[in-house]
Amino acid sequence: MATKLDKDAEARRNALGFGNARVITADEYFKRVRHNVVRGCKWDGEEMMSVLNELGKDPLRHAERRFVSLINEDHGDMAGAAPGIFIGIQLIHPGERVPNHRHNSVAIYHTLQGTGFTTVEGERYPYKKGDTIVCPAWAYHEHEATGTEDTIMYVCQDMPEMAAKRTLFFEEPEGVENLRHMVQGTSKSWSATRDPDKE
Amino acid sequence: MATKLDKDAEARRNALGFGNARVITADEYFKRVRHNVVRGCKWDGEEMMSVLNELGKDPLRHAERRFVSLINEDHGDMAGAAPGIFIGIQLIHPGERVPNHRHNSVAIYHTLQGTGFTTVEGERYPYKKGDTIVCPAWAYHEHEATGTEDTIMYVCQDMPEMAAKRTLFFEEPEGVENLRHMVQGTSKSWSATRDPDKE
Amino acid sequence: MATKLDKDAEARRNALGFGNARVITADEYFKRVRHNVVRGCKWDGEEMMSVLNELGKDPLRHAERRFVSLINEDHGDMAGAAPGIFIGIQLIHPGERVPNHRHNSVAIYHTLQGTGFTTVEGERYPYKKGDTIVCPAWAYHEHEATGTEDTIMYVCQDMPEMAAKRTLFFEEPEGVENLRHMVQGTSKSWSATRDPDKE
Amino acid sequence: MATKLDKDAEARRNALGFGNARVITADEYFKRVRHNVVRGCKWDGEEMMSVLNELGKDPLRHAERRFVSLINEDHGDMAGAAPGIFIGIQLIHPGERVPNHRHNSVAIYHTLQGTGFTTVEGERYPYKKGDTIVCPAWAYHEHEATGTEDTIMYVCQDMPEMAAKRTLFFEEPEGVENLRHMVQGTSKSWSATRDPDKE
Repeated sequence: MATKLDKDAEARRNALGFGNARVITADEYFKRVRHNVVRGCKWDGEEMMSVLNELGKDPLRHAERRFVSLINEDHGDMAGAAPGIFIGIQLIHPGERVPNHRHNSVAIYHTLQGTGFTTVEGERYPYKKGDTIVCPAWAYHEHEATGTEDTIMYVCQDMPEMAAKRTLFFEEPEGVENLRHMVQGTSKSWSATRDPDKE
Repeated sequence: MATKLDKDAEARRNALGFGNARVITADEYFKRVRHNVVRGCKWDGEEMMSVLNELGKDPLRHAERRFVSLINEDHGDMAGAAPGIFIGIQLIHPGERVPNHRHNSVAIYHTLQGTGFTTVEGERYPYKKGDTIVCPAWAYHEHEATGTEDTIMYVCQDMPEMAAKRTLFFEEPEGVENLRHMVQGTSKSWSATRDPDKE
Repeated sequence: MATKLDKDAEARRNALGFGNARVITADEYFKRVRHNVVRGCKWDGEEMMSVLNELGKDPLRHAERRFVSLINEDHGDMAGAAPGIFIGIQLIHPGERVPNHRHNSVAIYHTLQGTGFTTVEGERYPYKKGDTIVCPAWAYHEHEATGTEDTIMYVCQDMPEMAAKRTLFFEEPEGVENLRHMVQGTSKSWSATRDPDKE
Repeated sequence: MATKLDKDAEARRNALGFGNARVITADEYFKRVRHNVVRGCKWDGEEMMSVLNELGKDPLRHAERRFVSLINEDHGDMAGAAPGIFIGIQLIHPGERVPNHRHNSVAIYHTLQGTGFTTVEGERYPYKKGDTIVCPAWAYHEHEATGTEDTIMYVCQDMPEMAAKRTLFFEEPEGVENLRHMVQGTSKSWSATRDPDKE
């Protein structure tokens, strides 16, 4: 069904604002809201480790930056293994420390290999293969790999949905000057020192 | 940083599945997850009513099909006023009845004009201008407009996020044969009689 | 089925951490995850206005503090009209200004009465009865009521779910010193000057 | 601030409906929406396996019923490792098959041990230690453990939030008669043969 929009009305509306407002009919809505084909997806363990080991040749950068992420391309810009769930594999070499930081996505760490300590808001938990530790939203946390093996953690977060809703914040590493709103656009980060669009 | 993916590995993976799996680095991830510019948005009341009044010339179809929806185009396929929130304006002529139906999105009805009854799981609530009635997820509900004025309701639902997560179901009107999973793709609706892609 | 937890193991675990970790069986899980009775709910327009008019006798406090909120008590601590949706009714007297502020919940304003301007990240939109304006997550916004009538806005946000997930932030009014994480508990706000548990 | 609710109004409202509607002030709202203390949480790998091995002594029941789930008790009735994320550990003995079923929560399977096949909507993926396979919402899936070792999978889903929003559906095993809305209360499942409150 044609919506028979008055062209003058459209011009008037665009003159008032940005031109991004539309009023659509029910029929149009259900065509837009029905989402496209999404298939099952498998990520091969050896491929994950091969990409991760490439990253492992570089020194640890920032607080959260030595991981690979599993993407189902069928979800488009809801980037992750699922629209609501990010899966990452994190590598920490013995003796390294991922410094204290926080984000308002939840992080669930399952240790696949290695030993060390994860500290959440000052509580220090030893980890070993098979343990799971959760860091609640906006709680400070750090990791330190001890022992002789690399630490490999399977990490689950609720980032993709939060990014799409523009609710995601990072403070990395600890320090008010490192607070960032993790989006692009009109609503700028309040950080005077770091621009996410530059990194 | 190049991910140096083994091309043979990629070919192997694609041979196993659909080819939609990717393993990306942290740097690539944060580029993808940072969402684009989203501007404020205004929908003019007169324009809403003008589109709605066009729809009002046709008879009421299905249980939920005489409404207009407010779209902020900046959200792409998270179609709605916001990524998590759908806003619709619904019109019911005096004497009409929106038959019993349900969906697993929540619906919040605020009456802007008119009088009548909204029945939620058998409980019959009279409505008048200024009242708000909520229908919980998957509760049956129907509306009947009485009095002499058109009923106009401002409706709020959590559909866009649910559609993007592929969790949205409708049963419209009441009846097992009308159950539908509101997506396209591999996971077909179990309805033998109605195909959402045909409507 | 009894889980036959080794009491020594439980003691060991509690000794390591806070004592909030539990491992439960599938049967126990499905009992916990199935949620209780939630009924439909109606809020009477006259009652809303009566509570709001009481608030209107006091001067405007803070940026967001002259509104009433509709609560379905059946949702427990997911406080709102629905688990994912907050509905508030906001009153602004002629000549008043709700100063610039932001939050990472989305806000959708539908004008029920009055005229004035809503400014979103510097874009100034005139509003009148029947218009809807959306302020995206973490965009600065302010309202000023002009004309001679009270401004009454029907406001929809996605706060309840965000509060339950501990992702909610406010900056009210504008200014780094007013940034607050809207929860209680171990993960403190970074605000040195305002403690949400004190307000 | 006292809300000075007219007692007569309250009586009138309760007479109309269920008595679960409340209109509260902004001050009351922010007290309710600010959530309680949530601490970090660690689940010991040996304890998980000890509870899971108890379950392993019984035959496999239903499609999804041999797993343990990690609960952070601080989240109350948002039962899971986090408000939005369920973590379960699933055990399948060699030769067993988890029959075809589906749910509108997403499931992400990471193989910790064992070999076999996961079939998603007819696509058969071999799995081995280190692989991750995702089953999209409402896609049919089944598992079969082959080889000689037990299959142990670390499973991530978005169930807790969905249950709290009352949007969760299961069809387990495959068959229209097994469709169930996974809540308690007024909105009954359409299953004539299975009542979730009886299981």
